[in-house]
Amino acid sequence: MRGFFEPETVAVVGVSNAPDNLGRTISMNLMAFGFEGMIYEVGPKGGALYGRRIYRSVDDIPDHIDLAVLLAPAAAIPGIMEECGRKGVRRVVVESGGFTEYGEEGQLLAERVKEAAARWGIRFIGPNGLGVINRRLGLATSFGILDPSVPAGGISVLSQSGGVMISILNTLTSEGLGVAKLVSMGNKLDVDENDLLEYLIDDSETHIICMYLEGITDGRRLMELARRTDKPILLHKSNIGAAAGRVAASHTAALAADDRVVDAALRQVGIARFRSTETLVHYLKALALPPLRGNRLAVLSRSGGHAVITADDCELNGFELATLPEDFLEAVQERFRAKVVRLTNPMDLGDLFDLEVYGDLAQATIAMPEVDGMIFLHTYVSGYEGGRSEELFRRLHRISLEAGKPIAVYTNTAASEVTRLKRVLPGPIFDEPSDAVQALALLRDFGRGMAPSAERPDGPADAPRVRGILERCRREGRDPLLQESLEIAAAYGIPVIEGRLAGGEEEAVQAAEAMGYPVVLKVISSDVSHKSDFGGVQLNLRSETGVRAAYAEMLAAVRSRAPEAGVQGVLVQPMAATGRDLIVGAKLDSHFGHVVLVGMGGIFVELLGDTALRVAPFGRRTAEAMLRELRVYPILEGRRGQAASDVPALIEVIRSVTRLVTDFPEIAELDLNPVRVHEAGAGCRALDARMRLGPPEV
Amino acid sequence: MRGFFEPETVAVVGVSNAPDNLGRTISMNLMAFGFEGMIYEVGPKGGALYGRRIYRSVDDIPDHIDLAVLLAPAAAIPGIMEECGRKGVRRVVVESGGFTEYGEEGQLLAERVKEAAARWGIRFIGPNGLGVINRRLGLATSFGILDPSVPAGGISVLSQSGGVMISILNTLTSEGLGVAKLVSMGNKLDVDENDLLEYLIDDSETHIICMYLEGITDGRRLMELARRTDKPILLHKSNIGAAAGRVAASHTAALAADDRVVDAALRQVGIARFRSTETLVHYLKALALPPLRGNRLAVLSRSGGHAVITADDCELNGFELATLPEDFLEAVQERFRAKVVRLTNPMDLGDLFDLEVYGDLAQATIAMPEVDGMIFLHTYVSGYEGGRSEELFRRLHRISLEAGKPIAVYTNTAASEVTRLKRVLPGPIFDEPSDAVQALALLRDFGRGMAPSAERPDGPADAPRVRGILERCRREGRDPLLQESLEIAAAYGIPVIEGRLAGGEEEAVQAAEAMGYPVVLKVISSDVSHKSDFGGVQLNLRSETGVRAAYAEMLAAVRSRAPEAGVQGVLVQPMAATGRDLIVGAKLDSHFGHVVLVGMGGIFVELLGDTALRVAPFGRRTAEAMLRELRVYPILEGRRGQAASDVPALIEVIRSVTRLVTDFPEIAELDLNPVRVHEAGAGCRALDARMRLGPPEV
Repeated sequence: MRGFFEPETVAVVGVSNAPDNLGRTISMNLMAFGFEGMIYEVGPKGGALYGRRIYRSVDDIPDHIDLAVLLAPAAAIPGIMEECGRKGVRRVVVESGGFTEYGEEGQLLAERVKEAAARWGIRFIGPNGLGVINRRLGLATSFGILDPSVPAGGISVLSQSGGVMISILNTLTSEGLGVAKLVSMGNKLDVDENDLLEYLIDDSETHIICMYLEGITDGRRLMELARRTDKPILLHKSNIGAAAGRVAASHTAALAADDRVVDAALRQVGIARFRSTETLVHYLKALALPPLRGNRLAVLSRSGGHAVITADDCELNGFELATLPEDFLEAVQERFRAKVVRLTNPMDLGDLFDLEVYGDLAQATIAMPEVDGMIFLHTYVSGYEGGRSEELFRRLHRISLEAGKPIAVYTNTAASEVTRLKRVLPGPIFDEPSDAVQALALLRDFGRGMAPSAERPDGPADAPRVRGILERCRREGRDPLLQESLEIAAAYGIPVIEGRLAGGEEEAVQAAEAMGYPVVLKVISSDVSHKSDFGGVQLNLRSETGVRAAYAEMLAAVRSRAPEAGVQGVLVQPMAATGRDLIVGAKLDSHFGHVVLVGMGGIFVELLGDTALRVAPFGRRTAEAMLRELRVYPILEGRRGQAASDVPALIEVIRSVTRLVTDFPEIAELDLNPVRVHEAGAGCRALDARMRLGPPEV
Repeated sequence: MRGFFEPETVAVVGVSNAPDNLGRTISMNLMAFGFEGMIYEVGPKGGALYGRRIYRSVDDIPDHIDLAVLLAPAAAIPGIMEECGRKGVRRVVVESGGFTEYGEEGQLLAERVKEAAARWGIRFIGPNGLGVINRRLGLATSFGILDPSVPAGGISVLSQSGGVMISILNTLTSEGLGVAKLVSMGNKLDVDENDLLEYLIDDSETHIICMYLEGITDGRRLMELARRTDKPILLHKSNIGAAAGRVAASHTAALAADDRVVDAALRQVGIARFRSTETLVHYLKALALPPLRGNRLAVLSRSGGHAVITADDCELNGFELATLPEDFLEAVQERFRAKVVRLTNPMDLGDLFDLEVYGDLAQATIAMPEVDGMIFLHTYVSGYEGGRSEELFRRLHRISLEAGKPIAVYTNTAASEVTRLKRVLPGPIFDEPSDAVQALALLRDFGRGMAPSAERPDGPADAPRVRGILERCRREGRDPLLQESLEIAAAYGIPVIEGRLAGGEEEAVQAAEAMGYPVVLKVISSDVSHKSDFGGVQLNLRSETGVRAAYAEMLAAVRSRAPEAGVQGVLVQPMAATGRDLIVGAKLDSHFGHVVLVGMGGIFVELLGDTALRVAPFGRRTAEAMLRELRVYPILEGRRGQAASDVPALIEVIRSVTRLVTDFPEIAELDLNPVRVHEAGAGCRALDARMRLGPPEV
């Protein structure tokens, strides 16, 4: 990939000296950014531009070309690619549109471009993008005019969309955030995000990688790459609505919509997801600060109102306001003779009109072991206190670095002054108290939920038994039945419920007597899917009388509610010990492979969507993290005197599902719903199971 | 209040010609804003400033004074107030700090200031604020230097904090949003937010009212005032953490934390709440657009990437992308000979480099009856297309007004150009696609949830019976018992469960036989509060054998789990028909009076907080709106073949609770938990009740 970023000679193909020619703006950008190498223009009309000859073809260029940038009508591109190949060009950027986005004709052209490139060993970026920027070398191949005043720094950007790349660039410029390399990838016909990500991971100039993607080419590879690096990766994955309309057969499939899988996969490898340039900027500013190693913040503010607002924001973002020790506060009071309004946290500096004392207070406070980070809020009149305020900001930056703790600085003054400060200050400043707090929250949460890569699942697995059942199903062209699904689950060590099918009242009584009271009766009918709503479930039956009464009542209830329903019999089960019902499932995602899901079962999971997802395979720690992620987790842990559930047993079920789908990729969907989790120590059991098979080659 | 905003003569008290004197900056602001009346400075040292004499006392001023602005040490303020009174001044702004915020001494001073003011019939704003701004008259009494370039307009601001007022002012200035009147209220010793709100509601220059409050003086009055006006009111109520530590006895009290009551009350009267200046700006920009009368948006974008991002944001904000009719799209294609990349919605204008065609397309699209509003995304290079882009923005504004539908415009170009546009364009522009979408969502949701003010509850009410029980409780110095609470509920028409207390196994069997099988047994023990977790509940008992077995098992279970628990007996109840368990409750809030709460019962309400709140009294429509607000509402409505619950019966329970607490304000807390709601038509029943009484005079 390096060839794209460090060429010494660039050919711009598609240039004319017509004023509305877009190719010439590519040359203009190269010159405006101060490109250090040679630029050669090519265009069929010839002529001269910027004091240089326009060559009529690539062949005519009297030099070796490291990188060719093509902006000609789509139909001409295969020929130009061929020309480039002959000339010995091995890196090409195609900026023209009109390929995959234009139906059949475009698709055909795209194929021809790929063929030509493959034949000559050419790697190319695009089509339909703006190519690359290397800030240090002044390389900028965009046909949209760019602002060359963007500062140099360690941020690199990979964007599928050119427009989005430019707006990110504009925003970074006005926020004073420095860039290294940017790529507008376009349709990714050849070079894709993973190729470029790999390059940027190894690139010593790049410290932070930002990406904008509308589609993910290879999710597994993206995950592997992200696991390999410590550089922060920030990703805006858009196009979330595309899958919304899809119909899913199982609960798990419905709950694990594509975008939630993306979320889970990214979290697993520590990629931070953002949804707007604004949040990206918060991330980038946060990453410019020292790390936040705890959750306790100090808030220092010149305005009492902003102190209160920031305390609110801290609470809403789950921060703790550090408790400052009494003797510290007294020492502060004495040392600074401070008539500070509220010497507490948040600290209101209102009555002190001495900016040096502000700095002293900040320095003393950030040094406290009770304080993990600070929000400093400073509002001022630019004409009046501008110089002293700038000094204060610089001092806060130094203090923060020295203490190795983040100080997020908010300021509000004339807009022009804020703009200037963002360009000249060495550290970031925030435009809203809530932005500063959100940035620290992002810093705190960055990389949280990242799964240890070495973790591998293990445990009981009777693979031959599963293979036998699956082969039978495939021969018969059907999915596994309930009993088969439970058998498969059991083969991987998942405890499942026993039960006896009874054809009538007498059989039901016999089954109950054999099993021992109390028992449960459940009506079996392919026409009644929500049996409990139809009176089709009778719990806690403790005698023959009870079973007979319940049987009659149940059938009557079903008949009266669903007269046309065919009843195949009743299922007699031992009264299951009480417990919490959860759903554990898996599905095959087209981008990331198998994902495993867990959530509180019943109607709540559907409505409230309280589920956790992970890409398989993973081990015990990840399974546990999934459960902790659930909002209902405190229920499982036991609270307010309630009994705790057998969480370790549930974790084993999740791990077994993970192993099962990893070993049998043909399992497209699996639902264990519910898995009843009993009290701590009493285990858990799958009460129902459903499975769908996909093509065997998956 | 008008006297504060339209004085012809202003005295600034506390002025000296020392360079660090703050009083002189008040005069400076008055001059910088172009105050049209007379300014008189007063300070004990005398001298001259800005070419005017500094009078040694208010008495010395040779003119009548309409408004005095005081910025002297707190200890001097009572005396100056007295002086003002003698001089005939009737409107005073006190900017000094050092009163209520400084313990006892300050409190005493505050009392003396209030006394002096009351004696002379003086109304005053402050202390500890920056006073008033009337943009039109050039009145600006702040001692912090303000930027006088803020444009004039219809936005007025009431702020408790001076710092927050200034940062709002700075932000409005740089966003090009015009102001009418601003007040920094400080400690609200005399004039409070309701006095000023009332004035602004009647003020013809004010079209939108923004407020920042850390405390609410009189919630009921605030609600009444808001109900009286059509002007949009936007409120940042901060200080949300203050009540977090409080301990609450009942479920309802715990769930109805003060800040949620504020939320509910504001929604009821159509006040929009915001939590950052950024959101305020989105609101203000949205309110500058024509109203959004539906949920279907069209997205037009020059950049495909921004189109995709905006489609995501539309989905996340609950918008629908309008389906544009085929014949319309064909006509567009023909008329504009448009090689538009994707002629659909979102519409990618990428390949059209003609800004006039953009305008034509926007005009044709916004006119479609299928379209309720539009997001227009335009990114450009300022040097290259600046003039034509500004023309386009002006045209989009005209088109929007003509169509009477909002067009939210996003742009991204050089930062300086965006700053300029915000000052010169007649309509708003947004800095992020997500900001534009959020603004339209705010516009759509504004005033939603507002309760009809005329709605009054009515229904059965046996007040004498309730009064009798409450008087007995008061005489005996206790809260109502479970049975009494249920009786009170029943007196207001709330259906409650029957049940018989049994002292032992024999009595339990007798009660069950008398009642008819199946029955439920519940252990009664003041030591066991979560009976079902301790095996203290046995359902579905269908025979004497069943009751006896269950009784023994239940007692054994309780004894083994809580050996020290005293068991008073068992409650025998008929097996309640199945249904959904909800909680309905009420509590007395110190700011807003009684609030009523409803939510899905059980462990889920605690963990997931899915509850709805309203300030009483209210009627049927509001009760229904509360239920629709619940995330679990679809369950009550019936879905996926499940039975619908008796929602009308539940609504009656909510209304009855509302009437009960309105008639008996001494009920400080009331919990009906659970209220079991049966299938549609089968009613509902309170299975348990708890009540706490407050002081009778409340």
